[in-house]
Amino acid sequence: MTATPAEARARYRDGLVAPTTGHAPGFTQANLVILPRDWAYDMLLFGQRNPQPVPLLDVTDAGSFRTTLAPEADLRTDLPQYRVWRDGELVDEPSEITGLWRDDLVSFLIGCSFSFETALIAAGLEVRHIATGRNVPMYRTSVDCRPAGRLHGSLVVSMRPFPPSAVAAAVTISGRFPAVHGAPVHVGDPASLGIADLAEPDFGDPVEVRPGEIPVFWACGVTPQAAVMASGVPYAITHAPGHMLITDVPDTEYQV
Amino acid sequence: MTATPAEARARYRDGLVAPTTGHAPGFTQANLVILPRDWAYDMLLFGQRNPQPVPLLDVTDAGSFRTTLAPEADLRTDLPQYRVWRDGELVDEPSEITGLWRDDLVSFLIGCSFSFETALIAAGLEVRHIATGRNVPMYRTSVDCRPAGRLHGSLVVSMRPFPPSAVAAAVTISGRFPAVHGAPVHVGDPASLGIADLAEPDFGDPVEVRPGEIPVFWACGVTPQAAVMASGVPYAITHAPGHMLITDVPDTEYQV
Repeated sequence: MTATPAEARARYRDGLVAPTTGHAPGFTQANLVILPRDWAYDMLLFGQRNPQPVPLLDVTDAGSFRTTLAPEADLRTDLPQYRVWRDGELVDEPSEITGLWRDDLVSFLIGCSFSFETALIAAGLEVRHIATGRNVPMYRTSVDCRPAGRLHGSLVVSMRPFPPSAVAAAVTISGRFPAVHGAPVHVGDPASLGIADLAEPDFGDPVEVRPGEIPVFWACGVTPQAAVMASGVPYAITHAPGHMLITDVPDTEYQV
Repeated sequence: MTATPAEARARYRDGLVAPTTGHAPGFTQANLVILPRDWAYDMLLFGQRNPQPVPLLDVTDAGSFRTTLAPEADLRTDLPQYRVWRDGELVDEPSEITGLWRDDLVSFLIGCSFSFETALIAAGLEVRHIATGRNVPMYRTSVDCRPAGRLHGSLVVSMRPFPPSAVAAAVTISGRFPAVHGAPVHVGDPASLGIADLAEPDFGDPVEVRPGEIPVFWACGVTPQAAVMASGVPYAITHAPGHMLITDVPDTEYQV
């Protein structure tokens, strides 16, 4: 849990498959979406038009597997697990993608709500999925993103429950991180987001919502992955949900 | 000076050519760069990689002259003056571009430092170019932007002088507007930015810097225009410096 970013990445490179939540605390974790150059304009525009779920932290040159966020990292090997998509369908979940690399692939590094979790915990809030050693629960919603070219899809949110007395602090603290999803998009009432059952997330693990607790929802970087599925993108590679790139950038860098 | 955004745009549509600074105060003004679809990816990436000088507020679909920032506005007629560029050279400065429109043109609306000037004035600071009825002075610097594809160029800054006692307020207040250039990139010492003479701006008008005043420099939305020139883009249309799109979005929308 107390590894440096480089140490954590080395373990994943050596084959460890595990969610990254809570690892290398204090350093920004990033969602990854890799698309052929032919689809990269649509994703770049999708991010510009939907900055809360798709805050772009870096976009590589075509063919490059290096990012300014972690100059020593290799995007093909240094995440714990990947997902490979063909025509919007999941076809594989490998732990590295060296053999799949192509010179026309563009990598999008997207902010992750893990960045403000350190600040929430430092403020004395219990972040349930971290406290219980689980992956954060994520849900598809009935809210449509603004489409961009051929890309469309619904907003995906992550959920953290808090007692009513802690909700304002959770909003205020996360709001200081606008480049990594920022303040919640929704507080309470999952049904009005089209979420039928909090106990059955679409991605990640369920967590307990105790009596009287309020579910708080943040825009989630899995949203572009849902767009890849909904739009039937011919070829894409993403991180597996919760299995992020750990960067060298301190979370405080994105605090305003 | 007290026109609504729609009234101001109607005057420009009817042929008025004048800088927009100080007009429709309290509403966001935007820089405009129009490029063929073939170059749009490079500009979108240039904005992602250089968010301080190129904060993208909206990017249109190819062929559309409508923006979400001002749904009634026509981007071909509602700015006071445009610049037309071929191979990076200025070839015309028309007051409307209807006859130049093409179905493959993509419009980039980019944040403008005018947005935080209202807040500076409300805080009791004198913004010199507004107080003296001039266009803000803008300078090319020796600082390179991060290139994107075929696009490269140097950072352009706007300058406002303040007495030493007001510099901290100018920094703090503008820092609350990260989506419209945010805090200054540089305070004092024009020479270290490669600016030889403040009295000779590259764009806009010179303003007086009184003895003891500190020149404060903000990243400027003319930066992508300088990149169009430096990169020899085959065809582009931009606003004329200081002759912006006045949008319907209150400046407070971009305050954090």
